[in-house]
Amino acid sequence: MITGKNIIGYELSSLGSNTAHSYNATSGQSLSGDFVEANAAEIELAMRKSQSAFLQFKNTSGKDRALFLRAIAEEIIILDDDLIHRCMAETGLPEARFKGERARTIFQLQSFADLLDAGSWVEARIDTAMPERKPMPRVDLRKMLIPLGPVVVFTASNFPLAYSTAGVDTASALAAGCPVIVKNHPAHFGAGEMVGQAIMKAAKRCGMPDGVFSLLNGVDFKVGETLVKHPLTKAVGFTGSFIGGKAIYDMAQSRETPIPVFAEMGSTNPVLLLPEALKNGAEKIGKDYASSINLGVGQFCTNPGLLLGIEGEDLDRFTESIKEGIAQAKPFTMLHKGIKTNYDKLRNETIADGSVRLESESILEADHHKSEARPTVVSVLATHFLQNPGMHKEVFGPFSMLVKCANADELHKVVESIQGQLTSTLMAQGNDYTNFANTINILKEKVGRLVFNGVPTGVEVCPAMHHGGPFPATTDSRFSSVGADAIKRFARPISLQDCPVELLPDELKDENLLGIWRLVNNKWTNG
Amino acid sequence: MITGKNIIGYELSSLGSNTAHSYNATSGQSLSGDFVEANAAEIELAMRKSQSAFLQFKNTSGKDRALFLRAIAEEIIILDDDLIHRCMAETGLPEARFKGERARTIFQLQSFADLLDAGSWVEARIDTAMPERKPMPRVDLRKMLIPLGPVVVFTASNFPLAYSTAGVDTASALAAGCPVIVKNHPAHFGAGEMVGQAIMKAAKRCGMPDGVFSLLNGVDFKVGETLVKHPLTKAVGFTGSFIGGKAIYDMAQSRETPIPVFAEMGSTNPVLLLPEALKNGAEKIGKDYASSINLGVGQFCTNPGLLLGIEGEDLDRFTESIKEGIAQAKPFTMLHKGIKTNYDKLRNETIADGSVRLESESILEADHHKSEARPTVVSVLATHFLQNPGMHKEVFGPFSMLVKCANADELHKVVESIQGQLTSTLMAQGNDYTNFANTINILKEKVGRLVFNGVPTGVEVCPAMHHGGPFPATTDSRFSSVGADAIKRFARPISLQDCPVELLPDELKDENLLGIWRLVNNKWTNG
Repeated sequence: MITGKNIIGYELSSLGSNTAHSYNATSGQSLSGDFVEANAAEIELAMRKSQSAFLQFKNTSGKDRALFLRAIAEEIIILDDDLIHRCMAETGLPEARFKGERARTIFQLQSFADLLDAGSWVEARIDTAMPERKPMPRVDLRKMLIPLGPVVVFTASNFPLAYSTAGVDTASALAAGCPVIVKNHPAHFGAGEMVGQAIMKAAKRCGMPDGVFSLLNGVDFKVGETLVKHPLTKAVGFTGSFIGGKAIYDMAQSRETPIPVFAEMGSTNPVLLLPEALKNGAEKIGKDYASSINLGVGQFCTNPGLLLGIEGEDLDRFTESIKEGIAQAKPFTMLHKGIKTNYDKLRNETIADGSVRLESESILEADHHKSEARPTVVSVLATHFLQNPGMHKEVFGPFSMLVKCANADELHKVVESIQGQLTSTLMAQGNDYTNFANTINILKEKVGRLVFNGVPTGVEVCPAMHHGGPFPATTDSRFSSVGADAIKRFARPISLQDCPVELLPDELKDENLLGIWRLVNNKWTNG
Repeated sequence: MITGKNIIGYELSSLGSNTAHSYNATSGQSLSGDFVEANAAEIELAMRKSQSAFLQFKNTSGKDRALFLRAIAEEIIILDDDLIHRCMAETGLPEARFKGERARTIFQLQSFADLLDAGSWVEARIDTAMPERKPMPRVDLRKMLIPLGPVVVFTASNFPLAYSTAGVDTASALAAGCPVIVKNHPAHFGAGEMVGQAIMKAAKRCGMPDGVFSLLNGVDFKVGETLVKHPLTKAVGFTGSFIGGKAIYDMAQSRETPIPVFAEMGSTNPVLLLPEALKNGAEKIGKDYASSINLGVGQFCTNPGLLLGIEGEDLDRFTESIKEGIAQAKPFTMLHKGIKTNYDKLRNETIADGSVRLESESILEADHHKSEARPTVVSVLATHFLQNPGMHKEVFGPFSMLVKCANADELHKVVESIQGQLTSTLMAQGNDYTNFANTINILKEKVGRLVFNGVPTGVEVCPAMHHGGPFPATTDSRFSSVGADAIKRFARPISLQDCPVELLPDELKDENLLGIWRLVNNKWTNG
């Protein structure tokens, strides 16, 4: 089943000479499949095919693209336990997690299919002609969103299904009408190819043009670089580290023709532990956060990596509780060796800082042969945190840093100092909201999602979800990589002026054949 | 009335030592007003004031911001003929044009006020909690657009009102809830300050926070550069040349925290003269285009600078007609000396190319003392055009280049070769649409607006207008600088998860107090 080849439209291809394996995350043993890295000729072919597919694909109806997305979901289901087992082996995460992640992936594909069936996402606006208007007649104008063109997708190691080959970036780009070229992730080459073949099958079954989807193996950074710099690439989706995302962003902006890059690059997701909330629930909050920090071995992009509180008895009670929770937490295998090495490095560097106190770590040591990460919570005084920008860095894994503030003013300063975040959480009750109104007012400027009295881990897939946020959480705070609005990253408006009726797309005809919501002469109507 | 000072929130300030004048475009004489360039301290103060204003302004209601925009419109009307006369002197354009442009400016401000009163622009989405859902309960999520923060606006020399101090960029940023810092344009310092003072008055009258608006005089590029690089700047709007816009874009992307820049940077707005349309109307098309080319002394961003046709008798008839029209056109004063000098330079360079034929120029010579531009049409063979990328450059002014194609294939190649454009126009009839379907399919990928059987000059202000387009027409094809959707450049979504009712903004409360359109549990409703 796994061939190790690149998928270039409807061809399997392995012309290159570099090969690589993916590895069992727990044992470190190499897994089946000699994955052949795409060479320059294959990248070029994939891009040309995707451009020629685009000229047809962009004119398919939303309904046809919905069928395609549903077919992808079906083909993924058919992969059944083979896919689940490969994901487990490649990441070290448990079966239940992948059954859940697969369900999410399917749900996302279906959600975009639903969006296409509903059709209103194109933001149709119609302003009809006014031939009698003085001093000048008004022309007829009709506008809707159309796809940008071929989209390159860099997939996430921490979600081999939901943010990878058939994840949100791919699903939303295909939904918009953009062909997709996925750079297969070395951490899960096998799962990547399995899903890639499912997409290829679905595309064939639905009569989609050759080149609507490609999957290229890349070990070296060069494959990704060539894709980002290719003149036919019109946009990029990325989920991963700040270093990787920023490098891709910079490459894309320094092209002769800059292109949009939506890179989601991680976050420390600060949690504000406000006094009344702590007073009434320090123990429970501590317990909940110990488990949120360890969810998915701390490898969620919304992991709470920063806890901010004001020193005092209640914060001490919270600290005792979270210490206890962390001590009892078990070390688990991280996604791959690189991530594990990086975790240990950053964790140890942080602990080694004389001003940082190791509050708690799991009583069980991490088994390094299994690439396990040891859950850890440290604390630091706000004064030190404020003076050391290095302290603000994300430690990707089951790690969190409690910043102890002397008073409300210092907490305010810490909030002012933090960078853009995917989320922030307010643990607050009663007067906390008024007492900290100014701090909350500032906090909103830093985040894409503000959680009240919960945990940030858990990203619901629904229209009201925003998974984005100010730089450096993402490269463009105006877009989301979760939920229906993720499609907007890959579409742009076009206005048709005085377009002959027979050339108008259904979305813009006088008669609303699709029953979509449109703004017609400044009134919303689906009639 | 004109003080020459910088407007920094509610202060007039002139601490700097560089001064400059604006000039009568026709006579070259300096006009009243010693404009003092903003110095570093003033720029810093303006930015700090704008950030502190932002923390209040962002929380004003849409209705309050609508009142503010309407008050700006009123204050501009009060300036009456003084403003019109200053615009005329500074640009050399006639009174009727400025009465029209003022009306457009007022209309734009009112349109954004209407948008705020209607309130639906915030794209509210509500997904209510499902505590019983299995395997996990669903949280309550509510999302809406919020402002980005302080916006720096670079104004356009060719629209001293509609795309300047109180133009679309300013109006849409203020509408979104972003304070604005305008860099006053040296070509119309006087009109800039008059309108700036009108905005200041309106802001005071409406009780807006000090710093919601500033206007800084900049002669040197340094003022703009400092503004773009300032850490408190959150977005930039620009209308002008490719060189200026691209420089600002690059600066903004190489900041430690990159920020969105919407730069509209000009266009050659290709016109496809297809065979049947020419056959049935060559003369009229030639006449219409001669006048479109000269509209506003050819200084519209949608000026038709490129005419593409297939050689033959009908194209010859078109050529004769446009030649006649151009010959009869009168030279007029350009916006300022720099633009006039640049026009002559590019025009002469183009004509000097041995492969370019001067088809027609106005029979009247341009009066260089009055900075007049001589209307001009040249032609070139497609083979030459295809081999020389330099030929694709915009010649800003009353100039157009006819590219003569040997056949439909060559026309297709020319269309493939053109860069991103604000507009393109199809002069087409009957079978043209089917015969050139592939060419039109490609053409759509290059443009923000496709005009059928008209002229591209004339940009209607309405929701269905898209004034944007692929690079290099703009820096981001997903946004527009005309029409209600221009507000989206300066807003981003935020999700509130399980937010206490009393903290929800009106837009997101259960009860739809504002009567806005919202997507509630995946259904559109204004109830």
